[in-house]
Amino acid sequence: MATATTTVTTEPTGTHLTLVTPNGSRRFHAVWLRDNAQDPDTRAPGNGQRLITLRDIPAQIRIACAAIQEGQLEVEFAPEGKTVSFDLDWLDANAYDQTPPSARGWTGEGIQTWDSGLMSDVPTGDFAALSQSPEALCDWLELVTRYGFGKVVNGPVEAGALFKVVDLFGYVRDTNYGKHFDVRTEVNPTNLAFTGLGLQAHTDNPYRDPVPSIQVLYCLESSAAGGENMVVDGFAAALRLREENEAYFDVLAEHCARFEYAGEDGVCLTSRRPMIELAPDGELVGIRFNNRSLAAVTDVPFDKMADYYAAYRRLGEIIDDEAMEVTFRLEPGESFVLDNTRVLHARKGYSGEGTRWFQGCYADKDGLRSTHDAMRRSGLLEAAE
Amino acid sequence: MATATTTVTTEPTGTHLTLVTPNGSRRFHAVWLRDNAQDPDTRAPGNGQRLITLRDIPAQIRIACAAIQEGQLEVEFAPEGKTVSFDLDWLDANAYDQTPPSARGWTGEGIQTWDSGLMSDVPTGDFAALSQSPEALCDWLELVTRYGFGKVVNGPVEAGALFKVVDLFGYVRDTNYGKHFDVRTEVNPTNLAFTGLGLQAHTDNPYRDPVPSIQVLYCLESSAAGGENMVVDGFAAALRLREENEAYFDVLAEHCARFEYAGEDGVCLTSRRPMIELAPDGELVGIRFNNRSLAAVTDVPFDKMADYYAAYRRLGEIIDDEAMEVTFRLEPGESFVLDNTRVLHARKGYSGEGTRWFQGCYADKDGLRSTHDAMRRSGLLEAAE
Repeated sequence: MATATTTVTTEPTGTHLTLVTPNGSRRFHAVWLRDNAQDPDTRAPGNGQRLITLRDIPAQIRIACAAIQEGQLEVEFAPEGKTVSFDLDWLDANAYDQTPPSARGWTGEGIQTWDSGLMSDVPTGDFAALSQSPEALCDWLELVTRYGFGKVVNGPVEAGALFKVVDLFGYVRDTNYGKHFDVRTEVNPTNLAFTGLGLQAHTDNPYRDPVPSIQVLYCLESSAAGGENMVVDGFAAALRLREENEAYFDVLAEHCARFEYAGEDGVCLTSRRPMIELAPDGELVGIRFNNRSLAAVTDVPFDKMADYYAAYRRLGEIIDDEAMEVTFRLEPGESFVLDNTRVLHARKGYSGEGTRWFQGCYADKDGLRSTHDAMRRSGLLEAAE
Repeated sequence: MATATTTVTTEPTGTHLTLVTPNGSRRFHAVWLRDNAQDPDTRAPGNGQRLITLRDIPAQIRIACAAIQEGQLEVEFAPEGKTVSFDLDWLDANAYDQTPPSARGWTGEGIQTWDSGLMSDVPTGDFAALSQSPEALCDWLELVTRYGFGKVVNGPVEAGALFKVVDLFGYVRDTNYGKHFDVRTEVNPTNLAFTGLGLQAHTDNPYRDPVPSIQVLYCLESSAAGGENMVVDGFAAALRLREENEAYFDVLAEHCARFEYAGEDGVCLTSRRPMIELAPDGELVGIRFNNRSLAAVTDVPFDKMADYYAAYRRLGEIIDDEAMEVTFRLEPGESFVLDNTRVLHARKGYSGEGTRWFQGCYADKDGLRSTHDAMRRSGLLEAAE
C-alpha cells in the first residue's frame, strides 16, 4: 500500500476513521484499533500475546486525531492520550469493512474441491524428501490443506512407521483404540467370511466429539488383489447437493444427527452434530457421514424428517457416484493422510489369496495447519528480506 | 410404556404410523423405522454398528402393516416384505415427534449452570476412592459433566501424577507444548518481576481447532501466599449476557472471532470460531474467551463491530464479576479437571516468599463422557436385572 496515495479522515465523534487506499475505502473503529495495537505495552514483544484486557480500554474510547506519517497510520486515542502506530499493510490485510459472504457453504482460502479428475494428479510426497527438506514438506502440507488428503510414498516398511508420518506435522491423538490400530486380514478364498467386502465411503469416528481431525493409514502388506483405497471430497459432495437442491443442503446443515459407538466394554461414545457443519457465517467447516455409526436421529422435527432422509439419501448417492471418487492402491511403505472433517474414505473389496496389513492412527489439524503456516510465514519473511 | 394402553394406526399411504402411548401421541416415518431396525441383519449383534446403508432401503419404502404384539411394535415394510420388531420403550426414548427448542442458548441434559454459590460445595473426589471404586468414579464424573469441573484431593505428590488423573477417564492430548507443561515460579518479593500477577479468567488454547476439551491442573508445590485457582461457568456467563441483552448474545454467537498463537519457532496456531458457539438448533455447546490470544476480529461487518465490542466487553465484565466465580486453593497432591469448552479458569495473584509448582495437561471430553456413560449404562443394566 503506497503511502502517498493513502489518506485518512476521522469521523467527527471519533468513533471511527476512514482510510482511503488504492484498494478501496476502509473504516476502522476506535475500540478495534486500540484493542489491536501492536505496541509493546499492548502486545508482548516476545510471543505476541495481548497484555491488556478489554476492561483496560475505556468504553468511551475515541480517536482524538489520526494521520499518515512515514508509511504508518498514527492514531492518538482519547481519553487515554496514547498514540499508536499501525502498519498500513497490516490494516489492509485485516480490514473488516466489507460485505460478508451471503451464500452458505463457502469454503475458506486455500481450499480446492475436487472429483475423480484428481485421480491423475494425487497429491504425493516422498518420505525421504518430506523428512529432509522443509520446502518439500511445506509444499506437500499445502497440497494436503488444499485437497484434504495426500499420499506419502517410499516410507519404511516396518510396524509403527505411521508415527514417523505424523511426526512430520503433528501429534498422535490417543483414544480407546490405542495410539494406533491394526487392520489385518488373511484373504482366503475357501472361506467367504474372510473375503473383505467393500465399505461405503465414510468419515471416521463421528461419534467422537471432538472428532479426530486427521487420520493416517499406512500400508505394511498388500498381496491380495483389490483392496484399493478410495477417497471422496465431502465438501465437493455437499456443494453438489446444494447445487442440486438447496433445501436438502439446508436441512442437513440445520439439524443435528446423532452418532454412537458402544461396541466394547467400558465404551459408550455418543455425539450430536450435523452431517454438514457450517460456521455461523456459512463457511463449510465439516462433514460427518457414517452409515455404520449413525444413531437414531431424534433432533429433526416430524415435519422435516422425510426431507431430512431424502437429503441424506441424496448425499449418499452423490458420495457413491464414481465421478466423485479418487482411487489408488497403496503398496507396502506407502500411506495417506486425510482431513477427517472433510474427506471420506473407503476400502474397495478384495479377493484372491494373500494378506493385507494396514496400520492407522488419528492426529489433529491444529498441528498440521500450524506446521504449514509457520513454514509459510518464515518463508515469506525470508523472501522479504 | 404399558402394552395394553398403547395403540398404533398406520397412515393410509404407509409413509408413517402413529403410536398413542400413555406419554402422548408419536408419529414415526417408515424410512426412519426401517433405518433404525435393531434386527441382526440391520445391526451387528456384537458391536451394534449398522450393517446396511441407506441405499439398501428402497426410496419408496412404506409401512404395509403395523400392530402391537407382546409389548413390541411389529412393522411389516413394503416393498421389502421384511417384518421388524421395535421395543416400545426404545421408541418412547427416541421419539422425534415433538416441538423443537425455540430459544437459543439451551443447555443439554445433565448440565447445571452455577455461580459463586457453588463455592461451598465444590465437586470433589478422593484420589484413592476414584481409583478403586467404580461407583465413586461414576459419581464424580457425573459432577464434572454437570458442573464442567471437579477437584481431586489426596493424590500423590510426584511429578507426572496428573497423568494418573487422566487415566481415570481418558487420554492425554499431546500438543506442541508436550504431553504436559510446568507452571513453576519462585516467588521472591525483592524482585517484583517474579511476583505472580493474576490472570483474567479464560479458556485455554482457543487458537487450536479442535480446541483441547479437557484441562487438568495438578498442584505439586504451593508455599507462596495467594495464587488461588478460580473458575467461572462460561455457560452461566453467556446465559446472563443473553438475559441482560439478547442482541449481545446473538452478535457473539453469529460471528466468528479469530485467535492466534505464534509465540515460538515453528508454531503458528490460528482459529476462526465464535466466542459463543451454538449447535444449529441453538444448543449452547462452547465458549472461547481469551484476551491474550484474541487476534484481530475481521469477520464482523463494520455495521456490527461496535455492538460486537460492546457485547465482548459486557461478557468480560460478567466473567470478572465476583458473584460468578468459585475460588479454591490447591494443596500439593490436589488437582482439578475442567471442561475447557465451557469453564474459564484463572489464577489469583500471589506474594510472599515460596514456590509454586503446577503441572498441566490437556485431554478430551469424548473419553470422559464415554467412561461416564458406559458406567452409567452398565449400572442401569445391572439395576434392571
